[in-house]
Amino acid sequence: MTERANAIAAKVEAFVRTVVMPYEKDGRLGFHGPEDALVMELRAKAREAGVLTPHILQDGSHLTQRETAIVLIRSGLSPLGPLACNTAAPDEGNMYLLGKVGNAEQKARFLDPLIRGEARSAFFMTEPAETGGAGSDPSMMQTTCRLDGNHWIINGRKKFITGAEGARVGIVMARSDDGACMFLVDLPDPAIRTVRVIDTIDSSMPGGHAEVDIADLRVPADQMLGASGEGFAYAQIRLSPARLSHCMRWLGLATRAQEIATDYACRRHAFGKPLVDHEGVGFMLADNLIDLKQAERMIDWCAGVLDTGSLGTAESSMAKVAVSDALFRVADRCVQVMGGTGVSGDTIVEQAFREIRAFRIYDGPTEVHKWSLAKKIKRDWKAAQG
Amino acid sequence: MTERANAIAAKVEAFVRTVVMPYEKDGRLGFHGPEDALVMELRAKAREAGVLTPHILQDGSHLTQRETAIVLIRSGLSPLGPLACNTAAPDEGNMYLLGKVGNAEQKARFLDPLIRGEARSAFFMTEPAETGGAGSDPSMMQTTCRLDGNHWIINGRKKFITGAEGARVGIVMARSDDGACMFLVDLPDPAIRTVRVIDTIDSSMPGGHAEVDIADLRVPADQMLGASGEGFAYAQIRLSPARLSHCMRWLGLATRAQEIATDYACRRHAFGKPLVDHEGVGFMLADNLIDLKQAERMIDWCAGVLDTGSLGTAESSMAKVAVSDALFRVADRCVQVMGGTGVSGDTIVEQAFREIRAFRIYDGPTEVHKWSLAKKIKRDWKAAQG
Amino acid sequence: MTERANAIAAKVEAFVRTVVMPYEKDGRLGFHGPEDALVMELRAKAREAGVLTPHILQDGSHLTQRETAIVLIRSGLSPLGPLACNTAAPDEGNMYLLGKVGNAEQKARFLDPLIRGEARSAFFMTEPAETGGAGSDPSMMQTTCRLDGNHWIINGRKKFITGAEGARVGIVMARSDDGACMFLVDLPDPAIRTVRVIDTIDSSMPGGHAEVDIADLRVPADQMLGASGEGFAYAQIRLSPARLSHCMRWLGLATRAQEIATDYACRRHAFGKPLVDHEGVGFMLADNLIDLKQAERMIDWCAGVLDTGSLGTAESSMAKVAVSDALFRVADRCVQVMGGTGVSGDTIVEQAFREIRAFRIYDGPTEVHKWSLAKKIKRDWKAAQG
Amino acid sequence: MTERANAIAAKVEAFVRTVVMPYEKDGRLGFHGPEDALVMELRAKAREAGVLTPHILQDGSHLTQRETAIVLIRSGLSPLGPLACNTAAPDEGNMYLLGKVGNAEQKARFLDPLIRGEARSAFFMTEPAETGGAGSDPSMMQTTCRLDGNHWIINGRKKFITGAEGARVGIVMARSDDGACMFLVDLPDPAIRTVRVIDTIDSSMPGGHAEVDIADLRVPADQMLGASGEGFAYAQIRLSPARLSHCMRWLGLATRAQEIATDYACRRHAFGKPLVDHEGVGFMLADNLIDLKQAERMIDWCAGVLDTGSLGTAESSMAKVAVSDALFRVADRCVQVMGGTGVSGDTIVEQAFREIRAFRIYDGPTEVHKWSLAKKIKRDWKAAQG
Repeated sequence: MTERANAIAAKVEAFVRTVVMPYEKDGRLGFHGPEDALVMELRAKAREAGVLTPHILQDGSHLTQRETAIVLIRSGLSPLGPLACNTAAPDEGNMYLLGKVGNAEQKARFLDPLIRGEARSAFFMTEPAETGGAGSDPSMMQTTCRLDGNHWIINGRKKFITGAEGARVGIVMARSDDGACMFLVDLPDPAIRTVRVIDTIDSSMPGGHAEVDIADLRVPADQMLGASGEGFAYAQIRLSPARLSHCMRWLGLATRAQEIATDYACRRHAFGKPLVDHEGVGFMLADNLIDLKQAERMIDWCAGVLDTGSLGTAESSMAKVAVSDALFRVADRCVQVMGGTGVSGDTIVEQAFREIRAFRIYDGPTEVHKWSLAKKIKRDWKAAQG
Repeated sequence: MTERANAIAAKVEAFVRTVVMPYEKDGRLGFHGPEDALVMELRAKAREAGVLTPHILQDGSHLTQRETAIVLIRSGLSPLGPLACNTAAPDEGNMYLLGKVGNAEQKARFLDPLIRGEARSAFFMTEPAETGGAGSDPSMMQTTCRLDGNHWIINGRKKFITGAEGARVGIVMARSDDGACMFLVDLPDPAIRTVRVIDTIDSSMPGGHAEVDIADLRVPADQMLGASGEGFAYAQIRLSPARLSHCMRWLGLATRAQEIATDYACRRHAFGKPLVDHEGVGFMLADNLIDLKQAERMIDWCAGVLDTGSLGTAESSMAKVAVSDALFRVADRCVQVMGGTGVSGDTIVEQAFREIRAFRIYDGPTEVHKWSLAKKIKRDWKAAQG
Repeated sequence: MTERANAIAAKVEAFVRTVVMPYEKDGRLGFHGPEDALVMELRAKAREAGVLTPHILQDGSHLTQRETAIVLIRSGLSPLGPLACNTAAPDEGNMYLLGKVGNAEQKARFLDPLIRGEARSAFFMTEPAETGGAGSDPSMMQTTCRLDGNHWIINGRKKFITGAEGARVGIVMARSDDGACMFLVDLPDPAIRTVRVIDTIDSSMPGGHAEVDIADLRVPADQMLGASGEGFAYAQIRLSPARLSHCMRWLGLATRAQEIATDYACRRHAFGKPLVDHEGVGFMLADNLIDLKQAERMIDWCAGVLDTGSLGTAESSMAKVAVSDALFRVADRCVQVMGGTGVSGDTIVEQAFREIRAFRIYDGPTEVHKWSLAKKIKRDWKAAQG
Repeated sequence: MTERANAIAAKVEAFVRTVVMPYEKDGRLGFHGPEDALVMELRAKAREAGVLTPHILQDGSHLTQRETAIVLIRSGLSPLGPLACNTAAPDEGNMYLLGKVGNAEQKARFLDPLIRGEARSAFFMTEPAETGGAGSDPSMMQTTCRLDGNHWIINGRKKFITGAEGARVGIVMARSDDGACMFLVDLPDPAIRTVRVIDTIDSSMPGGHAEVDIADLRVPADQMLGASGEGFAYAQIRLSPARLSHCMRWLGLATRAQEIATDYACRRHAFGKPLVDHEGVGFMLADNLIDLKQAERMIDWCAGVLDTGSLGTAESSMAKVAVSDALFRVADRCVQVMGGTGVSGDTIVEQAFREIRAFRIYDGPTEVHKWSLAKKIKRDWKAAQG
């Protein structure tokens, strides 16, 4: 690991532990995610501490994925850490995408405020079943765009749009006759109406997850991101790094859950000895140690693949399945070790359990990844038959 | 199965499906459990439909445990069903205990309003770690009682007291020089102060789970339940049936989750066909079918043991572990099958997942039961050596 | 449970424990299953003890399936028990089928020697992949039969034919223009050539599992079992009871493994105390207790369904999956508890592990059953839509 | 990874695939492991191909552990590969130990023939329960040594001594008044009597696993390895690398099992399509892909820790648990994918399943490692409290 990454990671960890964690009982943690006032207050402190958007350097360059990993893991030690440090989803992935595909003008207008942590963004891709739209299967996308003079007109419905409420930058996917397209949009826009913010099991994302109706949204042609019909190709660019950065952040949170459960097990007594001295408890903590290490190793491996320039589609599927399942086991065991306290909001363990449950679904449920891995296994076998 | 039980169960199911389920989006479903106004409105309807407290007959007799099972399972098809039908914890267990141990006067005063569904009750046993008190290990109980003339004076702190807020009947455990004691208490009482209602992952219990401080609570001697020092023996009487009734109700809820997930999987398409036609999804539903059946069979078996008059301590431990773990797998798979919708509050599947997670903890975490089963295995082995 | 079944079961258990178990180190236990000389010696003792073919009564009637369960479970306490008592596969299933479908003459000639334990039989259904034949998917059957005067001429290849070597009675499946057919065949017959006896992980079946070539086998028309084209219907009759009887016997063996592992864990010390006092070990034994009980309950439930006259196809699939997976976990944990001794042939635990591994495959691998259950779930959902 | 290691690994893989694999049906593969004649024939070919003892260089230096990993993984692609290449247990660990602790004379006499692949060795540590001896808990060692003039006299009983039959070099552990000691012994020696070769589920180790009686074995004092009382320290040196090299070899074998199962699933049809197109099968192969990658990553990580000079006790415990459990899941799924063929000896998948089952026991069962990890977790927590 590079020295610069180690240094940044250490600074981030110190900041999260000393500055962010005390906010974990703040009154502004809402059911649909923390209020923006809280986010901005935390970011001011991060800016001051020099840990805001720590994975993107002053010169605009990005840490390698392996470097990013150790930084984002540390930012994840608190559910508020990624928000404070501006390493959270969906902004992190959106910044990555804009950095890769946006032109200079687009970057100045849409990307820079994101990097400065002044604005939040949303990625409008998934659609509701009711309209026959795209959930895990993007080929089913129903939202359309058509050129009308110098503008594109977009119509459709989107669901589970994280952070849409309160976002200032939107990336909207729709299909033209050429195929999928992406558009940069200033938010709010009256043509994008929040139908509702969905109640969900998780609660770490500001703005929650919204269902929105897009009716005759007019977007100037120069706000198309890249070229018409290339939307899925761009989505692919965003896909693996964004997927992997989820793994990083949640690994941080699961690591914290393990710290809390360990502390609990070492202090609390039952049946004549500390819980940790009961093998039934100690073995769960040992299993966690192993699962956390495996998650770390899978992330590091996949990050290394991405750093070679590969799209890493299969690798990030493998990492996502392995890490999300492992971290859920970890969180579940932490809850179990802590008994009644584990299912209470007294520690962030209960939240970690809920967040990581949702993580097994978003960015593609486990089953979708296994499905595509099975296809790849068959493909590779065929290729080997010559 | 008896005809009478089948008839009651069918009536309960019809009531829950037609009358209760429409309330599942009611505005009075709070974070700390449904409001009492809602509970009472539902109970009025249950009374009218003849399904209130359906497991206790007009003559005061109780259905057998095997009969109770099929009735309580049906009441559990909605998270609100047990509240509506007055088959919910902790009232159901408290009524059972009072029916077994209370004297005539105590029954008239404390039990009858419970059976009529007019009052709620709470069982004050578990204690916080901070005071070195009893969680899963009741031998650690710190709350004390001492006789002062014709009254007992009780002092201590209790934690995770389900439904304490809003309850009118309390059963308080404390230890005298003789050992553990139980007391019947009218609530509210200024000497029992709610320190806080704990935020927890579940949300089906009115009044939530409270931490309370008991300071010089004076209880008339004739409100002692049974005899001084016999508290643990009474707790044992309550233990297995109450544990098993949890299994029954949550089996109902998990069965409902499976219905919802099946419907979703049969309607929603992805990758060219209905989800259910993907083996990755269909196999999860098949696993659920098996787990639900196993849960039902374990409940029926354990109920049969209790019906012989046995305390069924080991048997109810086995059933609790098997059923809570199985139902959690079921709920988890239902969430997974439904993807984003599964982690949303759009259906009760998300709530089922949270409730059943908590169920793996209360009435003794899985590990405590395995611990006592392992002790029994050793004891039985020794006995067989002669 | 009936008195008669309890009495038979007790007699069988006593016989297996006292007479059969001492043979478990006999020199005639071959790699491809026990030698017939050993089987016949054991059966002579079973005959003498009145426990030969205990599930078929003197008057030719069969115990109910629920009764059969408790008898076959006890016979399974030793890997040699079912062979000794004549309750082993495939004879048990073949006798059942012949009892249901054979005519009087066929019963006298083919069934009676089986019931008397004087002959063994084999069921020629599954076929090798190499010839595109039927493994788990019977619709792929390639073996043909055609009428030639008063005889049927059968040609094909069969694989995994349990007990073919040494059998005196064969039931051969082949397809005519009408569909699948079954034939009763005297063995050995030069037209049925053993290509090889397959080396397999299990070793309890006399004759092992053979691959055979059938070349112009001539069978008199009156040796057709039932009618031409009805073969799959007859296979269905055999299917569920035979599947369930596997569950019964292996439950017996897993129960025995648990006895041995418990004994080991209570005697052997490590790290300062008996193994059983280590929760890591004690919890495994507790898990086994629960899994064994669940297996017993699923068998009893499915047997009850069959006793109503239902084919029980879905129910026996559910039971087979649940029981085979549960018993494998039990056997695996027993091995683990016993460490080096667990993977050695010093006790029957190691054999139980191997046998039950194979059990997860035969009579349909878990996945085939889940596949058909998923189909049923969809079918039931559709039916409910009206 | 270094170029030299990549080159060696490629050479080893080519050798194993082209030269060794054809021997997998050789008649000299015995129930208690391959015959030495076969081993020596294979080694002659390895010598010729330049892949004998490939992890120890001509100058006597040893590849790093990370380098060793990729070489040993490749050697493990066949159950015969490690024997052919002389990378098998227990020789590999014994060579490592002698290289670290032996003096020049001892190395010349005992180590060199091992490196040249001319001799096999055995490590006499574990003891039977019957004599109260050391299984997983080495502190229970009962075998004694006492000085008698210029010789040590050793008495005791050892069990599960892999490869003792046919070994020419023995390392014997016994305890003196100073503590544990290690001795180098020429074999065979009439004072070390093979009581029996234990029947075990695995069959890859020449000589199998023996139980031996040591009666007044006289060993010249200069054949003590290192110093008296330091035996456990030396065992520690051997421990982690030997444990990890097991992980390497079995990862190779599990990788091969996956190749075979994939090939089977891509060729064999059922229910209208190739098995691999059934998600129930494809998902198992995808799970294997992930498990194999995780195993590889854990090995690489732990090897890196050892390469820093650390004893890596906790790390190798973590790796051993993770890898052995993962590879067992892989092997089990391969068996399942292949149905009847999976439980047959037709491919090495069935053997892989048996070998890896045993691997979960030897070098410390999973539970012993979790036990020591739980202790470490507590220790680390305490240390962090300051």
